Amino acid sequence: MTKESKIPNPTIERLAFYSRPLEALLKGGPPVISSEKLAGLCGVNPAQVRKDLAYFGEFGVRGVGYEIRDLLKEIKGILATDREWALCIVGMGNLGISLVENENFKKRGYLFVATFDSDARKIGRQLPCGLTIEPERKIGELVRELGIEIGVITTPSRAAQRVTEILSDAGVKAILNFAPIQVRTPESCIVENVDFSVKLENLVYHLERLYKGKRSA
Amino acid sequence: MTKESKIPNPTIERLAFYSRPLEALLKGGPPVISSEKLAGLCGVNPAQVRKDLAYFGEFGVRGVGYEIRDLLKEIKGILATDREWALCIVGMGNLGISLVENENFKKRGYLFVATFDSDARKIGRQLPCGLTIEPERKIGELVRELGIEIGVITTPSRAAQRVTEILSDAGVKAILNFAPIQVRTPESCIVENVDFSVKLENLVYHLERLYKGKRSA
Repeated sequence: MTKESKIPNPTIERLAFYSRPLEALLKGGPPVISSEKLAGLCGVNPAQVRKDLAYFGEFGVRGVGYEIRDLLKEIKGILATDREWALCIVGMGNLGISLVENENFKKRGYLFVATFDSDARKIGRQLPCGLTIEPERKIGELVRELGIEIGVITTPSRAAQRVTEILSDAGVKAILNFAPIQVRTPESCIVENVDFSVKLENLVYHLERLYKGKRSA
Repeated sequence: MTKESKIPNPTIERLAFYSRPLEALLKGGPPVISSEKLAGLCGVNPAQVRKDLAYFGEFGVRGVGYEIRDLLKEIKGILATDREWALCIVGMGNLGISLVENENFKKRGYLFVATFDSDARKIGRQLPCGLTIEPERKIGELVRELGIEIGVITTPSRAAQRVTEILSDAGVKAILNFAPIQVRTPESCIVENVDFSVKLENLVYHLERLYKGKRSA
């Protein structure tokens, strides 16, 4: 039914966004939602919602809306969030600790099962979540032993490429990189780079345009 | 020269990405870069680079490439990253602390000038960067006094909408929200929501497809 190969990346990202209010609605409220309502809750326009959901074939009833339960199930199936994933994280500074303690990840099936650092002062420390910070040299062993598929990198920039190679050599299949450099992986390993300052640049671009609009008004 | 009103959001985000290797190249190396080379450094395809840069009029010389210095200057002008911005942050948990201490932000002109929390145990604590954690009730006063234009939210979900309203009432013009809910702002205030788990969902979607490809191969 789904024409998956045609789904563009921005649609995939929006599907994850759409699923957030749907989850909340599932706990109480009417069983059906219109594209207008869903769009309003997500801050996008209704035509966008209808276009994105149209990739998944014949959903919803014209003039009525979408069955929330069915829609959420379908989205979760597409995004592969209907299962649990084992993650490890390398670089246990403040950002690393905040991610490991993030309840939202756990709730969505992203389970941190190992944490690593290269700093001898951090190794051996037990975290509130119960995990102990392991030395980087144990990455290979623990990735195999615990079946870790996803690695998260929160090291300084200078260490990120080296850690990427250790992770992909160990058999990790996907990397979420928070260090502010673009890391490269072999084809067998997918990488997603997260750079907060890119988000800020996007924001100030729109802010400048807002200011310019005011000055010329 | 620039047809700014037509520039789509994904292009804006990619411009910020392109600027990263360009900055590194400016410190040493040849003065000109081809679209192929720039694309390779950023992990996108060359046609995408050419298409994105074409929004800014006649750049580069066919068959030769782009003058790195000019290109970077133009990108920074468009993104409004050629000036400094005053930021405050609300919610000084591990994520908040990691953002305030992020050298990358400072280097790009995003300067945190105030930090806030509602927790009496955190208020008054001095951070390594020299700032002191202030109580939330001082947001209005300090936003005006320090000319803060951008607010960053790193509170728990339940506090994010309330803090958004305090910030926009105080005159903050743009908000970067890290709490995993979509916050709403009045039209006079721009918001960008950052949800790490959306990035993970994007990643596992591609991972599942990689696995399926292997199974069917």
